[in-house]
Amino acid sequence: MSELISAVQVTPVAFRDLPLLNSVGVHEPFALRTIVEVSTASGQYGLGETYGDEPHLRRIERAAAALIGADIFDLHEIRRRVVHSLKQDTEVGGHGMAGMVTTSSTSDRVLSPFEVAALDLQGKTIGRPVSDLLGGAVRERVAFTGYLFYKWAAHPGQDEDEWGAALDPDGLVRQATKMIDEYGFSSIKLKGGVFHPDEEVAAIKALRKAFPGTPLRLDPNAVWTVPTSIKVGQELEGVLEYLEDPTAGIPEMGQVAREVPMPLATNMCVVAFDQLKPAVQHDAVQVVLSDHHFWGGLKRSQALASICDTFDLGLSMHSNSHLGISLAAMVHLAAATPNLDYTCDTHWPWKQPEDDVIVPGALSFSEGAVQVPTGPGLGIELDRDALARMHQQYLASGIRNRDDTGYMRSIDPSWKAPLW
Amino acid sequence: MSELISAVQVTPVAFRDLPLLNSVGVHEPFALRTIVEVSTASGQYGLGETYGDEPHLRRIERAAAALIGADIFDLHEIRRRVVHSLKQDTEVGGHGMAGMVTTSSTSDRVLSPFEVAALDLQGKTIGRPVSDLLGGAVRERVAFTGYLFYKWAAHPGQDEDEWGAALDPDGLVRQATKMIDEYGFSSIKLKGGVFHPDEEVAAIKALRKAFPGTPLRLDPNAVWTVPTSIKVGQELEGVLEYLEDPTAGIPEMGQVAREVPMPLATNMCVVAFDQLKPAVQHDAVQVVLSDHHFWGGLKRSQALASICDTFDLGLSMHSNSHLGISLAAMVHLAAATPNLDYTCDTHWPWKQPEDDVIVPGALSFSEGAVQVPTGPGLGIELDRDALARMHQQYLASGIRNRDDTGYMRSIDPSWKAPLW
Repeated sequence: MSELISAVQVTPVAFRDLPLLNSVGVHEPFALRTIVEVSTASGQYGLGETYGDEPHLRRIERAAAALIGADIFDLHEIRRRVVHSLKQDTEVGGHGMAGMVTTSSTSDRVLSPFEVAALDLQGKTIGRPVSDLLGGAVRERVAFTGYLFYKWAAHPGQDEDEWGAALDPDGLVRQATKMIDEYGFSSIKLKGGVFHPDEEVAAIKALRKAFPGTPLRLDPNAVWTVPTSIKVGQELEGVLEYLEDPTAGIPEMGQVAREVPMPLATNMCVVAFDQLKPAVQHDAVQVVLSDHHFWGGLKRSQALASICDTFDLGLSMHSNSHLGISLAAMVHLAAATPNLDYTCDTHWPWKQPEDDVIVPGALSFSEGAVQVPTGPGLGIELDRDALARMHQQYLASGIRNRDDTGYMRSIDPSWKAPLW
Repeated sequence: MSELISAVQVTPVAFRDLPLLNSVGVHEPFALRTIVEVSTASGQYGLGETYGDEPHLRRIERAAAALIGADIFDLHEIRRRVVHSLKQDTEVGGHGMAGMVTTSSTSDRVLSPFEVAALDLQGKTIGRPVSDLLGGAVRERVAFTGYLFYKWAAHPGQDEDEWGAALDPDGLVRQATKMIDEYGFSSIKLKGGVFHPDEEVAAIKALRKAFPGTPLRLDPNAVWTVPTSIKVGQELEGVLEYLEDPTAGIPEMGQVAREVPMPLATNMCVVAFDQLKPAVQHDAVQVVLSDHHFWGGLKRSQALASICDTFDLGLSMHSNSHLGISLAAMVHLAAATPNLDYTCDTHWPWKQPEDDVIVPGALSFSEGAVQVPTGPGLGIELDRDALARMHQQYLASGIRNRDDTGYMRSIDPSWKAPLW
């Protein structure tokens, strides 16, 4: 039975990150990920990628040990084993998103990389791309969004990076111009929640002026009150494609939704299946940003897509700092999801091209989109030298948990999370 | 590319049926089904089974022609082609349920047998049972319900059948005893809506007395008013596992649900995806009876299962008169659906054992359950001689549309559909 799991290798890695600002602080010099390699007796391997926070890493390692002997086609059994492995879980935290999102399902977060790896293996075993295991690609290319961040010119003590500073409307327009020149994105998202809402409204208006026909999104990560959210939403009527997580809480999002003209999107108040029913009851959001890293993998993300379709919710895709395995998984999922209503988020441009654990060439951007791999499985290969190098980087980085706030306070001890 | 569809054979068949009474009349001497055989260039075939009504048969034939050249792994493409083939559809009716349920989705009804056949082919191609394509079997055996009907002793002009008459509580208890003796079912459903509610309440109470620990269900097919539904529900407190479709309409079911102590189940007011949101908004039903024949096949039935899980709805499975292909599909689906909360309905005992289009032996009942086939695909084989014989039976029967009401009126011209 060559389809039984014979080994699982779990490797934490670190890759260089830039000083991107957000509502909880600033990205550290290295971002963490955990790489999962699932092997079968026949010598095939499948890949998964997930968060790198230490409590999560320990949960992943426990789950990995529980999966030996499971059938790669039996996703229900894999899920049962993952859930069982978490029965004795006493870890705290490890949500992978610097404390911004803490209500995702732990079992779905832990399941995700193994499910992706199992689908990669299934595809390799039967000679089919993962998109075929998800019902077939409905598009050959998956379009992504240019994801802008307020940022410093450099990490303290380092030379200015290639992107330079973006701390005002002009800086963001420069950043967007460079990003669109290089990647060809045809939509733009700004990570807000950094400066006073008036400044962020001004930034969006500057982007609208510089890119007249380009859909725009703004995401302040829920640091606005309900009245501020309504004020900003009304001010940006006709300008935003959607407004993402202006405020915290399902009922509060519902209050905002009733008063603003554009759809509200979320990857904060609806991040797990048990939050969908209250969200529908409150008519709190109009767009859900799915993310297979916390929705339990690709098949469960497709279940989410069906729910969105059924309950008249729009569907978009959320991203964190990620490597090529995650990008491949996102591309297959997006390709096989008919009701993906918006271009997907990605942090890809913020990563150094040489920082990855997969063999280069399988995935590339042109005109803001990635061609869906058509080879077996995810269509990517593990670069073991790169994996070893990036694991060394993890060990050397000293970072074990993403802590945007701690890093910010090490630079500005008086820094406090904003609430406008 | 041996995975492309090279031919589709569509064959209407008829099989003997017994005079089972329901709210719209009585089952005719023959029940109709359409058998779909999808072939690939490599010589593999996959099977699907669906309703036999003539407008439906014509839609199936049109869709079949449109599927030549489609990839059996590309279920999204298969669905697109089916939907496209229906663009010029001018047929009327063909819902397959004698007019009792008319709001299911035409495209999902037409898609269903082809999706099942494609999954059968996928499984045969990769050497895996269909349950593995649905995430893996979470149970080895699928439990069914003993499905009781009020019935005449025989069709007019025929000898009494082996089941005899069941027109009162004693008759139903005799029927249940025989059915449980032969099949080992551990739950019972009564198709009601035939006699005055007081008589059906008496029948349920007689069954409760005769089978003290056995879960009981009653389904009057929505022929009761809201007040009658509430009265019956309250009278049967502690007796029914669930009450199925006491009354018509989502808001009306919601009114009943608020006043009766047991869950309300439905396969009448929620039979398509667009009915789920209003059902949730009205808190109208607590259990959805899925049926892959009108929910668009096995994968879309799994999407329904995810929705039920997410929105705190129970899940059970509906049945019509069916043959072995449908039974195999139901068993694989049920096996791979973790949140199947109740035993499944089946009309199986009402069929003559020799009336089937599959080679005998793959599926059998013991202790009220069917062992999930573990061979490739659905795990069944087409019996071409039987198919030809049953097609001849279809031709000879003269029946082209299920018409329980017309048949009843041919016997009792004064018969009218009840409403209590």
